[in-house]
Amino acid sequence: MEGEKRVVALLHGPDDKGLVAKVANWIYSHGGNILHADQHRDLEAEVFFQRVEWLHPVENWEIESKAFKAFVESLNMNAGIHLVNESPNIALFVSKTDHCFHDLVLRWRSSEYPGKIACVISNHNDLSEEAEHYGLPYYHLPVSKLNKSEAEGKQLAILEKYKIHLVILARYMQILSPEFVQNSPCSIINIHHSFLPAFVGAKPYHQAYQRGVKIIGASAHYVTEELDGGPIIQQDVARINHRHSVEDIIRRGKDLEKAVLSQAVRWHLEHRVLGYEGKTVVFD
Amino acid sequence: MEGEKRVVALLHGPDDKGLVAKVANWIYSHGGNILHADQHRDLEAEVFFQRVEWLHPVENWEIESKAFKAFVESLNMNAGIHLVNESPNIALFVSKTDHCFHDLVLRWRSSEYPGKIACVISNHNDLSEEAEHYGLPYYHLPVSKLNKSEAEGKQLAILEKYKIHLVILARYMQILSPEFVQNSPCSIINIHHSFLPAFVGAKPYHQAYQRGVKIIGASAHYVTEELDGGPIIQQDVARINHRHSVEDIIRRGKDLEKAVLSQAVRWHLEHRVLGYEGKTVVFD
Amino acid sequence: MEGEKRVVALLHGPDDKGLVAKVANWIYSHGGNILHADQHRDLEAEVFFQRVEWLHPVENWEIESKAFKAFVESLNMNAGIHLVNESPNIALFVSKTDHCFHDLVLRWRSSEYPGKIACVISNHNDLSEEAEHYGLPYYHLPVSKLNKSEAEGKQLAILEKYKIHLVILARYMQILSPEFVQNSPCSIINIHHSFLPAFVGAKPYHQAYQRGVKIIGASAHYVTEELDGGPIIQQDVARINHRHSVEDIIRRGKDLEKAVLSQAVRWHLEHRVLGYEGKTVVFD
Amino acid sequence: MEGEKRVVALLHGPDDKGLVAKVANWIYSHGGNILHADQHRDLEAEVFFQRVEWLHPVENWEIESKAFKAFVESLNMNAGIHLVNESPNIALFVSKTDHCFHDLVLRWRSSEYPGKIACVISNHNDLSEEAEHYGLPYYHLPVSKLNKSEAEGKQLAILEKYKIHLVILARYMQILSPEFVQNSPCSIINIHHSFLPAFVGAKPYHQAYQRGVKIIGASAHYVTEELDGGPIIQQDVARINHRHSVEDIIRRGKDLEKAVLSQAVRWHLEHRVLGYEGKTVVFD
Repeated sequence: MEGEKRVVALLHGPDDKGLVAKVANWIYSHGGNILHADQHRDLEAEVFFQRVEWLHPVENWEIESKAFKAFVESLNMNAGIHLVNESPNIALFVSKTDHCFHDLVLRWRSSEYPGKIACVISNHNDLSEEAEHYGLPYYHLPVSKLNKSEAEGKQLAILEKYKIHLVILARYMQILSPEFVQNSPCSIINIHHSFLPAFVGAKPYHQAYQRGVKIIGASAHYVTEELDGGPIIQQDVARINHRHSVEDIIRRGKDLEKAVLSQAVRWHLEHRVLGYEGKTVVFD
Repeated sequence: MEGEKRVVALLHGPDDKGLVAKVANWIYSHGGNILHADQHRDLEAEVFFQRVEWLHPVENWEIESKAFKAFVESLNMNAGIHLVNESPNIALFVSKTDHCFHDLVLRWRSSEYPGKIACVISNHNDLSEEAEHYGLPYYHLPVSKLNKSEAEGKQLAILEKYKIHLVILARYMQILSPEFVQNSPCSIINIHHSFLPAFVGAKPYHQAYQRGVKIIGASAHYVTEELDGGPIIQQDVARINHRHSVEDIIRRGKDLEKAVLSQAVRWHLEHRVLGYEGKTVVFD
Repeated sequence: MEGEKRVVALLHGPDDKGLVAKVANWIYSHGGNILHADQHRDLEAEVFFQRVEWLHPVENWEIESKAFKAFVESLNMNAGIHLVNESPNIALFVSKTDHCFHDLVLRWRSSEYPGKIACVISNHNDLSEEAEHYGLPYYHLPVSKLNKSEAEGKQLAILEKYKIHLVILARYMQILSPEFVQNSPCSIINIHHSFLPAFVGAKPYHQAYQRGVKIIGASAHYVTEELDGGPIIQQDVARINHRHSVEDIIRRGKDLEKAVLSQAVRWHLEHRVLGYEGKTVVFD
Repeated sequence: MEGEKRVVALLHGPDDKGLVAKVANWIYSHGGNILHADQHRDLEAEVFFQRVEWLHPVENWEIESKAFKAFVESLNMNAGIHLVNESPNIALFVSKTDHCFHDLVLRWRSSEYPGKIACVISNHNDLSEEAEHYGLPYYHLPVSKLNKSEAEGKQLAILEKYKIHLVILARYMQILSPEFVQNSPCSIINIHHSFLPAFVGAKPYHQAYQRGVKIIGASAHYVTEELDGGPIIQQDVARINHRHSVEDIIRRGKDLEKAVLSQAVRWHLEHRVLGYEGKTVVFD
């Protein structure tokens, strides 16, 4: 793979005949070698989706990538084009709870997903020492009803400063305003500690306990303006029974949250997730 | 175990000191031998629950069982007392869909749960031949808005005729009226094809598809007057992805429904389920 | 899709540059429209695998399919080419146990997988009435050490008579001889009631109980000359605990066996399984 | 609960009539109040097991606990008696791999299980800095064929110095000698990265990849003199497919190992595990 770039493109657009062949052909005729190609047709919505990963000759990559983009647009499709070895910057938003924080940092240090945690933003100071131990800049920005807009302005400035490509809400206990979501320069992934769409909003484990469900869940989703309503990327569940108190449920839920959030983050950073119409296509 | 009766008692009432000892002592001092004893304290509600299974000398069982009941009531508890070898009668309610119907009948024939399917009641005629093949009486009672009350009256008469101890709604596609639920001589178990409380009501798999969830579920619950709101006995889930059409989801859901419903039925018939405050305690 | 054939091809061979493009191009230039294309590279073994499903113009299908085969061979690959609407004949091999038998027949009647159960072969007579009820020819061929070779000869003759494309060992309690496996005109799928490679051979649930495992499993695999050693198609597991007797484990295992075997059968009949080097690639 | 001790007793011995009543009676008559009582009969081995947790009046606990022990022995049973608020000392054995190390330490800091990590012992120096950050004494004891006996002697001395009640092999890549196991003052829990009894010994994920299994597992077990042959406490599994390389399997396996090992440790420290005849009874 010396002298070649490893490229991933995520494409989608109106379904048409021969799209697989046309894309494969373009890559082949430009000297590329397809490593993985996965595609999906939503037969109801008549939309075509494709994730294609290939080795491309390194010369003139800038010109080539523009040419590929133009080619894809000539097929009426949108394309996201990514170089696999790029390591995008990530911002962690946290509050007081630390399990997802440690989990994401330790996985990053173990190279379990591509990307680089560039900074930590929190409305509390609780995790600042731990962040320092990991060598991560920590921004303590308290949020209240009065200063929310100002605090979010500072958050956005930090995202810009660090050229952040992904925000992860790692049990960040503030609701982002629609303005923040609209102005965010990048995708935002949240972990909600229920099996969505059940138990939206606050204290989902308490809700689960009250209802007497036999299984609890956690859901990672892209943040949209609708609370806990964005496209779901990953979910997982664990069995509980009448012996489990709310505290037991919370403890078990932590493991779910870590697993689900880290999986969603990896898929996103490996360019495996395409969102559309409030849902996701995950090429895993 | 010759010359002995195998007894299960399900007890619950306000928590108090020494309940485990008192119950065990009563049984022991009456010549019984405890095989299994499982108990639970709801520390929040301060309720004590116990399932105790024992071998009791066979003499004077009627007097003994009354004595046990009186003893339990002296502890301010309610008791359900059951002989393990009794085989209670079951009525299956079905419509057109046959997977839960076959599953429950075949498991009954394989002795996978105690009890005897005594009759089948349906608002359609589709499964009558299959019921006949299994040697089961089949009552075809069409239900419309106009005749619902009358039809339910006939259903109740059939339950009485066969001395039914459990009604299973095996994908029966009619909502039972509050009057039927109140007048039913026995428990009613329903299978709802979603992970309750998500996707209550009609077409839950279509709802799941629209929302883009990554996991589907099925829930077996006791029927109460609130639609899909009764105490949940068992739930299970299966992973889906964007490749699954609604038809795929329905097909996978069938397997969940069979597993979840049959498990709930077995637990109920083995006297392992205690309902209280809209929830269940399952001594599995 | 009027006037078109729906085709699936399973390809594999030495990895080479441009294979995805070449295959897609051939289909496109012959008027086909790719519905699904999934491919895999075993980077260690340097083997390329592809499953491609497309709509092909109906004219001259025989000539076209030969042309495709020749084209694929020119790329040094093997190809299995299948028409989706063909319904291949299946033979069920059973003994006394009936859960997989009923499960497979009922799923077939519900069109849960393509294919047609054409006959049932058994070394016992126990399931003959049930087979008759389902309208299936039943061949009772007792097998002993002395007559094994003769009995297998009759079995092979039946496979030929019915033009069988798949043999399913639905808890058939005889070991097929290497000669039978070699001479079988088609693939053979077996269900082994353990989580292979643990607990090969007889009484795996008893072995699991003895070892005190916390999870039991079932494995569907292609039959090869090595006992329980063929390529695994699907596996699943269920949690058990110390309360489960061997009988409980057997009962829970039945559900696993049904789920795992029927899933493997569907994947095979949908031409999603490619075996190589003792393993399988499953394009699910 | 002021002025009372919370006690757990784990009992086992030959099955006999009235054991549940006798134990409950003893506790009740000594002023105790049973919180949980769970028991199990191995009908085949005719052994009775019980875990009973109760509040005991605080006066004269030493005399009382001796009296309980004597009482239990009069029933021909063995008893382990534990005070719930005692926080036993734990030693972590590690090598280079850090995921179980961080997981166990972070869970300990979050009070997810009772007990106190008192020291870390390693045959490598890799994790010394991390241990220091957590404030844990770190003993670097290289092990070779020549010095194994000497190194194990030092390990045993450390266990004694810290009054260790549990050794956890958190991916410690040395096999303990039978002498060490015999002389260990406490239980030893190991995590083996396969679904035992499949893939005993070295490189189980590579073995799993070679065999082409569809599910991988991890097993936590007590260490005995037989390699990977001790009583299994907990197991869990994850689904893999042909797309997963050995590296992917290893990464997914890490999550299994963390979950399985920490669960086994919690059960052990909550006095929920009874080992007998190479198996465990887990009162969860």
